[in-house]
Amino acid sequence: MQQRKVKIVGTGKYLPATTVADREMDRRLGQPEGWTLRKTDVAVRHYAGGETASEMGGKAARAALNDAGLAFADIDCLVSTSGTMEQPIPCTAALIQRAMGQEHSGVPSFDINSTCLSFVAGLDTMSYLVAAGRYRRVLLVSTEIASGGLDWNDKESAALFGDGAAAVVIEQAGEREKSQILYASMKTYSQGAHLSEIRGGGSRLPARQYRADIDKEFLFDMKGQAMFKLASKLLPAFVGEMLEAAGIGMTDIRLVVPHQGSALAMRLLQRKLGIAESQLMYISRDHGNTIAASIPMGLHEAIVQGRIVRGDRVLLLGTSAGFSIGGIVLEY
Amino acid sequence: MQQRKVKIVGTGKYLPATTVADREMDRRLGQPEGWTLRKTDVAVRHYAGGETASEMGGKAARAALNDAGLAFADIDCLVSTSGTMEQPIPCTAALIQRAMGQEHSGVPSFDINSTCLSFVAGLDTMSYLVAAGRYRRVLLVSTEIASGGLDWNDKESAALFGDGAAAVVIEQAGEREKSQILYASMKTYSQGAHLSEIRGGGSRLPARQYRADIDKEFLFDMKGQAMFKLASKLLPAFVGEMLEAAGIGMTDIRLVVPHQGSALAMRLLQRKLGIAESQLMYISRDHGNTIAASIPMGLHEAIVQGRIVRGDRVLLLGTSAGFSIGGIVLEY
Repeated sequence: MQQRKVKIVGTGKYLPATTVADREMDRRLGQPEGWTLRKTDVAVRHYAGGETASEMGGKAARAALNDAGLAFADIDCLVSTSGTMEQPIPCTAALIQRAMGQEHSGVPSFDINSTCLSFVAGLDTMSYLVAAGRYRRVLLVSTEIASGGLDWNDKESAALFGDGAAAVVIEQAGEREKSQILYASMKTYSQGAHLSEIRGGGSRLPARQYRADIDKEFLFDMKGQAMFKLASKLLPAFVGEMLEAAGIGMTDIRLVVPHQGSALAMRLLQRKLGIAESQLMYISRDHGNTIAASIPMGLHEAIVQGRIVRGDRVLLLGTSAGFSIGGIVLEY
Repeated sequence: MQQRKVKIVGTGKYLPATTVADREMDRRLGQPEGWTLRKTDVAVRHYAGGETASEMGGKAARAALNDAGLAFADIDCLVSTSGTMEQPIPCTAALIQRAMGQEHSGVPSFDINSTCLSFVAGLDTMSYLVAAGRYRRVLLVSTEIASGGLDWNDKESAALFGDGAAAVVIEQAGEREKSQILYASMKTYSQGAHLSEIRGGGSRLPARQYRADIDKEFLFDMKGQAMFKLASKLLPAFVGEMLEAAGIGMTDIRLVVPHQGSALAMRLLQRKLGIAESQLMYISRDHGNTIAASIPMGLHEAIVQGRIVRGDRVLLLGTSAGFSIGGIVLEY
């Protein structure tokens, strides 16, 4: 069974106050004026300054609850769908619960992680528990601090990322409501497991073995070209299958909300997948790539900007380290 | 809806070859002979030597598939339900897929993390997708290397942990089969978020800020007394509610498979919860506490040792950093 009567009832986002504009980034990277904008198309990215990921996530979650007209007490489960973690132990969801001042609530809190696709995997997975009535409402929170793990020698990649958080509340849709998930799919090809990675900081190369001469092992390392090649080989058939299974064509989609990877990659894939300009939600310019928060943030912006209304068909679509591709076709 | 016609069709485990016996541990800790056994009741724990968590997980997964008479091609989804990660990026499930030589399979692979309760949260969550027919079969893998993050100054805690991996394959049970999940529950009280933690290595205190003088921030730090106090306050009502919801009493449970925390804590809780000696699966003596692998490993041993047979009622039960408590009542 793929169709699920699940409805997005609220969305919210939070961006840290510190902004880094493209000219400032040019200076930081020692590049000529205009370089950052030309290379990344990111005019402004936000960086956390003294805030923790759980505090940021808590603020986005609060905004999503307000948007839905709900209180935390209306939530039965909190899932952190983030690609970065605040501490190795405990899971980020527990820290978000605490940051929200809900430490006595008992609301089950755990993490679902598929790097940049964490939100897609989390929404896909948790929607089954909502549809089955296990949880009345689930709060999904993606909160990312990318700025601490960037390799400033890899200038194009460093200029691309931003910090931020986004949250979404889902509940069961009524029988007469149009809102539902039509189809979702995810595929992982670990042939690309080492094309996008941070090697150091887990059990294989513990943080305690950090030394300045192996600093690079602890920084984000992406083989952008190879990732893009894999994505462009796999995505057309993947999206084709999804739409066919959902019984619709690309023209039936009101808006595609993609993971905000590099602007160049997005543009090329847009053409390859036959996505019209008016169908593409593009928020990179004033957010950068906020890892797993990027898709729910795009969704939030699409709703706020009135680019989608109830009943509209939306395609969430992205790639992630793993290498994974994932998507959800839903009626908002 | 809580009842799910989901069946455990195969289990497997893998322990690294290097063993550390209690007398050896006495020497390592500079304690008199007999101290380790008296304090922890762990006679043997295994330590990974040069192996990665994904290699260990892959071996446990292979064993579980063999046990089920299945090939990897029969699996539709791979979930790493581990409390430790191999690398910050990508997720451990992708690395397990690769370690199994299945890098072109496309099988969706992601992580569910609730520290020591990761397997319980993963089985609980993914069973809904199996019941709904989204995935025919799901492979859950818990693989843990604890030995790299132990604080050797905290001798009792250091002596307790072991490395290891366990895996479980689930599929939809037939209408006439008795196998099912009767009830599952999880609660998170983040008032205890900092009672059991590793503070350094995530976005709050990045691995790159490691310095020898703040080494302690990167080591496992547990306030055992406070954790135990919280657990013993919350567990009786939690287990009572679970059994009541499942419509059974403790005497109807054939076997309780608890998280193998400290022996002392387990014994005290056993008494408090009215679990008879014959009802308790206890594997700490020759495994130690293998974090999230501890419950599926206990389940595997219970099946191998013939302590449960098809149709028997089993209670999986544990606590984790977070602070979370979780359990599943199932008919095997």
